[in-house]
Amino acid sequence: MAGIHLTLEAARGLSVSCLTANGCDDDNAQAVTEVMIKAERDGCTSHGIFRLPGYVKTLRCGRADGKAVPVVERISPAVVRVDGQNCLAPLALDRGRQPLIEAARETGIAALSLVRIFHMAALWPEVEAIAEDGLCALAVTSSRALVAPAGGTKAMFGTNPMAFGWPRRDGPPLVFDQAVSVMARGEVMIAARDGHALPEGVALDADGNPTTDAQAAVDGVLLPFGGYKGSSIGMMIELLAAGLIGETFAYETTANTADDGGAGRGGEVIIAIAPNRFGDGEGWLDHSEAFFAEMLKQDGVRLPGGRRHAERARIPKEGFHIPGSLHEKILALTNTE
Amino acid sequence: MAGIHLTLEAARGLSVSCLTANGCDDDNAQAVTEVMIKAERDGCTSHGIFRLPGYVKTLRCGRADGKAVPVVERISPAVVRVDGQNCLAPLALDRGRQPLIEAARETGIAALSLVRIFHMAALWPEVEAIAEDGLCALAVTSSRALVAPAGGTKAMFGTNPMAFGWPRRDGPPLVFDQAVSVMARGEVMIAARDGHALPEGVALDADGNPTTDAQAAVDGVLLPFGGYKGSSIGMMIELLAAGLIGETFAYETTANTADDGGAGRGGEVIIAIAPNRFGDGEGWLDHSEAFFAEMLKQDGVRLPGGRRHAERARIPKEGFHIPGSLHEKILALTNTE
Repeated sequence: MAGIHLTLEAARGLSVSCLTANGCDDDNAQAVTEVMIKAERDGCTSHGIFRLPGYVKTLRCGRADGKAVPVVERISPAVVRVDGQNCLAPLALDRGRQPLIEAARETGIAALSLVRIFHMAALWPEVEAIAEDGLCALAVTSSRALVAPAGGTKAMFGTNPMAFGWPRRDGPPLVFDQAVSVMARGEVMIAARDGHALPEGVALDADGNPTTDAQAAVDGVLLPFGGYKGSSIGMMIELLAAGLIGETFAYETTANTADDGGAGRGGEVIIAIAPNRFGDGEGWLDHSEAFFAEMLKQDGVRLPGGRRHAERARIPKEGFHIPGSLHEKILALTNTE
Repeated sequence: MAGIHLTLEAARGLSVSCLTANGCDDDNAQAVTEVMIKAERDGCTSHGIFRLPGYVKTLRCGRADGKAVPVVERISPAVVRVDGQNCLAPLALDRGRQPLIEAARETGIAALSLVRIFHMAALWPEVEAIAEDGLCALAVTSSRALVAPAGGTKAMFGTNPMAFGWPRRDGPPLVFDQAVSVMARGEVMIAARDGHALPEGVALDADGNPTTDAQAAVDGVLLPFGGYKGSSIGMMIELLAAGLIGETFAYETTANTADDGGAGRGGEVIIAIAPNRFGDGEGWLDHSEAFFAEMLKQDGVRLPGGRRHAERARIPKEGFHIPGSLHEKILALTNTE
C-alpha cells in the first residue's frame, strides 16, 4: 500500500505534537487524539488522522479553544450537562461520561447534554465506552447543514449520525454508528480526494440535480437514507441535539460558521440506559445473546462492527498507512515556528 | 365511495359492542376502541376499525384477557413499568402515561416499559398524547417476526415502528410513526385485500425471492427501509422493546403464537423527555418553531402528520367508510349468541 506507514503509537505522537503546537493543552490534545487513534485502530480511515487538519483549522481560526476546561453539572436527577466552553468535543465527552453512567445507574435512564463543543469525530467510541460499562447507549449529534430533507434540494440537516451500543456477554459491545445521509460525509470526502464516483441516490449537485460526482456532492447536498423515513430520523436528531438542549440546528451552524474545513459548534445528546434497572434483573444479557445467535443463523446476516473488530485485532500489531500528502500536511501544521 | 358510511360515534359504538361481546370489560373495550377511533379520525384506515377482527381473534383464542387490570409500578426513579396482565395494549398505555409524564418531569428523562401486552395499534397516538402535555416522546415496539435483517431472507424483526412526538407552540404536536419495513404491514395487508401490487424492494416471497405481489409478501417477508441502516434500527428496536425489558423478541413471539390474524404478546418502550429540564428553559419551543419554519421554506418539503391533521378536520364532521364486508364481519363477531 502506498503512503506513510505509522504505528498507532507514532500516530498518537504525531497528533499530540500537532495539536499542542496549535494551542491545545495536554488534556485537550490527548482527548482529541484518542478518538482519532481509536478510529485508525479499527480501520475507520475517514475518522482517523485524516481529520487532524480539520481540528487544526478549527483551533487556528479561533473558534475552538484548545485550553478549554469543560464544566460538568447535573442539572436534573437524570440529566448531566457539559458546557464544553468551546473545546473540541472529545474532552467534553470524557468529562461527561462517568457522571452520565452514574446517573443512569441511579435512575435507570439518563441523558448527557453537550453544548458549546466542536464535533468532528466518530460517535461510536462514545457509545462503545458506555456499553463496555454494561449500559445501553444512544448518541446523536448535529453538524453543519449537509443533507436535504426528503422532497427538498437544499441542505437542512447535518449528516446527523446516530450511534447505538449494547453490551455483549463476551467481547466488545455491539455498536452501530450511521449517518442519516445515504453515505457518510467522511466517505464522500475520501471519494472526492481519490477521484472515485459515488453510487446513484447519494447526492444532489449545487443546482439540485442528482449527481454521482463526489466533488459535486461535496459542493452540493447529500440525500437522506431511506427517503422520507431517514429524513424523519434526521429531523428527530436535529430536535434532540439542538432544539432540546439549546444548541444550534445544522442550518444555524452553517450560517454562523465559515466553511473552512473545520468543525462548526454544535450539540450532542447521549441517552444511557441501565438494563438491570428495567425489571428483568440480569436476564437481558443472556436473552439478547440468544437474539444475536438467532440473527447469525441466517447466511448473509452480519452484526455491525465485525469489520472494525477484525481490524482492531490486526492494526495495533501491523500499523496502518496514511497518504504521503496528509503526512506532509500534518508535519507542516505542526511546524508553527 | 363504496362501503358503509360511519360517523366516529357510530364506529365507537360498533367497536365497544363487539369487544364487550367478546369478553372485554368496559375499561378495556373503551381503551382499545379509542386508538382505533383516533386512527379513523385521522384517515389511517390500516390502523382503524380494520383491526377490530384481529383484536377479537386475540381475545377469543384466550391469549389476551379482556378483563385484565394492568399493574403500574415505578421500579426505578426514572422507569415506570406496566405489567399488562395480558391486556390488549391500549389500557396498559393509558395507565402508564401519567406516571411516565410525572417521572420525566421530575428527572428530565424517563422510560415506560410495557410488558405482557398484546399490541396491534398505531404508535403515534401514544407519543402524541405525551407531546400534548409538553414533553418529547419516543416509542418503539416489537411484534411478530415479519422483516428480514439486511442480507437475510427470513423474518427476524417485527415491523417495529418507531414513533416520535415533539410539542408545537400552536396546534397538534409534530409526530411521525414509521415502521422499519419499507412498507407498513397494515398497508401491505390492505394492498393484498384490495389486490394491489407492491412497489419493488418492499418484500421477498416465501422462497426469499423479490416480489411485488402483496399476498406473496404477506406469506413471505418484508424488507427493512434503507438497507442495512434500517435493519440496524430494527435490531435496536428489538433490543429496547424486548431485550431490555424482558419481553419476547419478534422471533420468539412468532414461535410462541399461532398465526391466526390476532396479536402476539410483546413489549413496548416509551422514552419521555421534559425539554425544560435540559438547561434551555422554555427557549426550546421558539427555537424548534424557527427550525420547522426554515424546513418549510423549501418547496416539496412537508412536516409529517399534515395529511392526518387535514383528515382530522374533516372526518369528525363527515364520517368515513368501511367496506361492507368488514361491517358484516364486525356484526357477525358481535352477535355471539
